[in-house]
Amino acid sequence: AFRNERLRDDALQTAVRQKPDALHPLTRAEQNRQLWAYETRVKGAFARIVPTLRAIAARQHAPDFERSAQESARAALGFALPDDALADAWVDRLDMRALFAHATFETFRAMSTDYFTADPLETHPQARDFQDVLLRCGFHAMNVTPCADGRLAHTISYVLRLPMGTVQRRSSAGALFDVEEALQRWEAVELGRFREGVPNLADAPTRYLKVAAYHYSSRDPDHQGCAAHGSDTRAAASAGLAQLRAFRLAVENTHCCGASIATLLIGIDTDTDRLRIHLPNDAGEPDLDRLVDAGGLYRATAQLDPESARTRIREAIARPRDGGPPPEAGMQDLMAKLIENNLSQIDYVRTYAGEHYPDAGHQERFIGVGTDFEEVHLRNLTYFAFMRTLEEGAPNLDVGIEIFRRLNVAHGLPIPIVLRFHYTGQVPGARERAVQRCARIAEAILKRYPDLAERGLIQTYWTLRDTSRADPIECVGSSLPSTWREV
Amino acid sequence: AFRNERLRDDALQTAVRQKPDALHPLTRAEQNRQLWAYETRVKGAFARIVPTLRAIAARQHAPDFERSAQESARAALGFALPDDALADAWVDRLDMRALFAHATFETFRAMSTDYFTADPLETHPQARDFQDVLLRCGFHAMNVTPCADGRLAHTISYVLRLPMGTVQRRSSAGALFDVEEALQRWEAVELGRFREGVPNLADAPTRYLKVAAYHYSSRDPDHQGCAAHGSDTRAAASAGLAQLRAFRLAVENTHCCGASIATLLIGIDTDTDRLRIHLPNDAGEPDLDRLVDAGGLYRATAQLDPESARTRIREAIARPRDGGPPPEAGMQDLMAKLIENNLSQIDYVRTYAGEHYPDAGHQERFIGVGTDFEEVHLRNLTYFAFMRTLEEGAPNLDVGIEIFRRLNVAHGLPIPIVLRFHYTGQVPGARERAVQRCARIAEAILKRYPDLAERGLIQTYWTLRDTSRADPIECVGSSLPSTWREV
Ligand SMILES: [Zn+2]
Ligand SMILES: [Zn+2]
Ligand SMILES: [Zn+2]
Ligand SMILES: [Zn+2]
Repeated sequence: AFRNERLRDDALQTAVRQKPDALHPLTRAEQNRQLWAYETRVKGAFARIVPTLRAIAARQHAPDFERSAQESARAALGFALPDDALADAWVDRLDMRALFAHATFETFRAMSTDYFTADPLETHPQARDFQDVLLRCGFHAMNVTPCADGRLAHTISYVLRLPMGTVQRRSSAGALFDVEEALQRWEAVELGRFREGVPNLADAPTRYLKVAAYHYSSRDPDHQGCAAHGSDTRAAASAGLAQLRAFRLAVENTHCCGASIATLLIGIDTDTDRLRIHLPNDAGEPDLDRLVDAGGLYRATAQLDPESARTRIREAIARPRDGGPPPEAGMQDLMAKLIENNLSQIDYVRTYAGEHYPDAGHQERFIGVGTDFEEVHLRNLTYFAFMRTLEEGAPNLDVGIEIFRRLNVAHGLPIPIVLRFHYTGQVPGARERAVQRCARIAEAILKRYPDLAERGLIQTYWTLRDTSRADPIECVGSSLPSTWREV
Repeated sequence: AFRNERLRDDALQTAVRQKPDALHPLTRAEQNRQLWAYETRVKGAFARIVPTLRAIAARQHAPDFERSAQESARAALGFALPDDALADAWVDRLDMRALFAHATFETFRAMSTDYFTADPLETHPQARDFQDVLLRCGFHAMNVTPCADGRLAHTISYVLRLPMGTVQRRSSAGALFDVEEALQRWEAVELGRFREGVPNLADAPTRYLKVAAYHYSSRDPDHQGCAAHGSDTRAAASAGLAQLRAFRLAVENTHCCGASIATLLIGIDTDTDRLRIHLPNDAGEPDLDRLVDAGGLYRATAQLDPESARTRIREAIARPRDGGPPPEAGMQDLMAKLIENNLSQIDYVRTYAGEHYPDAGHQERFIGVGTDFEEVHLRNLTYFAFMRTLEEGAPNLDVGIEIFRRLNVAHGLPIPIVLRFHYTGQVPGARERAVQRCARIAEAILKRYPDLAERGLIQTYWTLRDTSRADPIECVGSSLPSTWREV
């Protein structure tokens, strides 16, 4: 009845055994090894939950069960299971649903804490450098909206190899980000430049860059593309473009004095993580039909030395083969950097997965609800539903619940939902309001899916982060008493 | 079974008959007459709904009913009733609930359209002048939060005699405004100064002024005070103060470079509209125990000539009797102006209502849900529940529904709810998103009060306003087909 872990593990193991030879000259092999170590460590932790619990379940009526169960939990998962649950097993049987949710939330907590305390992706040292690169390219901020699909959750750190923090992420189903929210974000950034000169002074001729990332499947384009756009690649791309245009017009029309932004449209093949970047049309907007493709450039430059490869990439961008307009100079630099970064990711997938990822479809471990989870950077780990209230975000969550009905509920397992809201610690009452928001949304979720709620098949774990500090997340509530205790 | 209109009308009539003699020397008598004309005109229109429908109901089986009913509707209410409803009356009987909601919405629509097209309170000519006054006092913006209570709905235009537009209103239950929203608003205003020099340049030494207005009842302080604070005047005042402080700290702590705001705490007696203004403590914050009272100053200056009265008021503010610290110079000017403005309102109530308003409690005609209704300026006309989603705003609406269960449902009448959201017309898709917000919230309201919804005792009317234009509101949906037709 449990999820089949074997398929994934086998594929990973096969991949690991392949010799990572024939890398592209611009691929950063050492970075790939680090990213792979991080991915296997975190995904391994989630993958061990089911087999470990399964083994524990098999022994639940054995003598000395409690001690031996805790021993294997600690050894395999890194944390103990709730004593009460184990102690009561002799009366009836172990509540495996509760233990599964408990283990998922504890594994998430460990991963999240590790991210904020140990910086495993080395985001901090990269952040400063990339801020400079971005400014030299003519942009004082870069805000990326990938689709909320779990197969895009690694867009920033893996596919684009960019440091979170310097780059802002606003995932959204179908890349259809909230224009009003984007406008507020833009206003806050511009005010920071005027008031505080951060990251540069307001009169510097740089622009705010908004990026929309749509996705498609090269292997099974009609079924494994973007669900929000019926797996229609062109529809996904043109929806992203329309949203970018809406945001640009919103900035231009609600602020005078030449206010505007730069926009960029990119596409990601979820089977290979290959990146395509759209070139501008005559009006400077991304053109749906003009693009540079990192896969093609990979092949065209694989036999060159690094500098020649770089030159060839820059040429493909600066002098498009169709003779159409090139991007502006700074945008050319940024595009070249994104393409070069993506070459490493193409090799990453080739090395560790082979021709394409083994999991073309959904294999997420939990649903994330609320604002961005800065610590989530792994493909197919999290289905993310952005929302401030379920009233506004219900359509996004409905899709995720359907996915997890297949992944978990069909096998008797509950759907683990992690809530996340941000607050600013120095604002009086802000934390309390964020806690209330968690409570409200958790209640609304139970009401929306009563068939699951009644059977304990939805479990929630409430987390907050104070954006004014570098601290890890804080758990402020849970549907499982074992994962949270009021202090 | 209908609401008792007599009590209110009698009280108003008695008041009208009193000679408006013995006005305060600083009272603007002509302005009072205009405001009174507006109040009687609008409230009269709502007051005529029940008697008119009652008379029509009595004749529903008479010959020539349809023609005569439409004639009296047009004559008394200014609009026709839906033909279908009248034509079908012979089958069963008139659907008085639907007709009542129809008439309420149509009356609201007429009032609202009149406000935006004819400027009946002469807001536009006053706005420019007051902008200058405010800047001279050292403030580039003034944002007031009165309690959402219907007895405070006339705070800006009547009690304080200030022009909407120049003064922003953010009503909120118990004056407990949303700090995060207030911070966003502040950021938008400051960005406007930096980018566009509106209303003045960012380096001008002016401040953003946030005002919290609590309320109390001098006649029945224990029962008719602020419901959100259990009719405890001191609790209401100190909650307003705490919210002002939270907002100030939010600005100071999320923005550096000396960012701050000015704050002002005022109290309003809902029986007499008398204003009290809190003086600052040593730290410059409003002091709960130090205040100037417009009622006392009215009596102390009633026998003086206008200039001496003004001087006496300025002295009371500049040299507080307790010897404590006076407000800063610009704030003194603003306080003196508010006190002088309020003297007119004190006389307004004395002239037209007598010693106190006849309606100490709730007598609202409809519930407003959503963002601010710029056109609502009359006491006890609207119970207002601010919200972007019902998930966040439900506690506010619950209070309003309880009030209207007594006012309307107990007499068999439905609760008319007008929804209102703003959008910026030039932002692509913004109107469509605002329509969706109305639809979502209307659906959520029906779900939250199923006992009322099932019996047709909740009716909703969906309105939008494009804040980038001076146009009237637009109706984009309704639970009553007779008040809205898709075009
Ligand atoms: Zn998608
Ligand atoms: Zn999907
Ligand atoms: Zn009240
Ligand atoms: Zn109140």
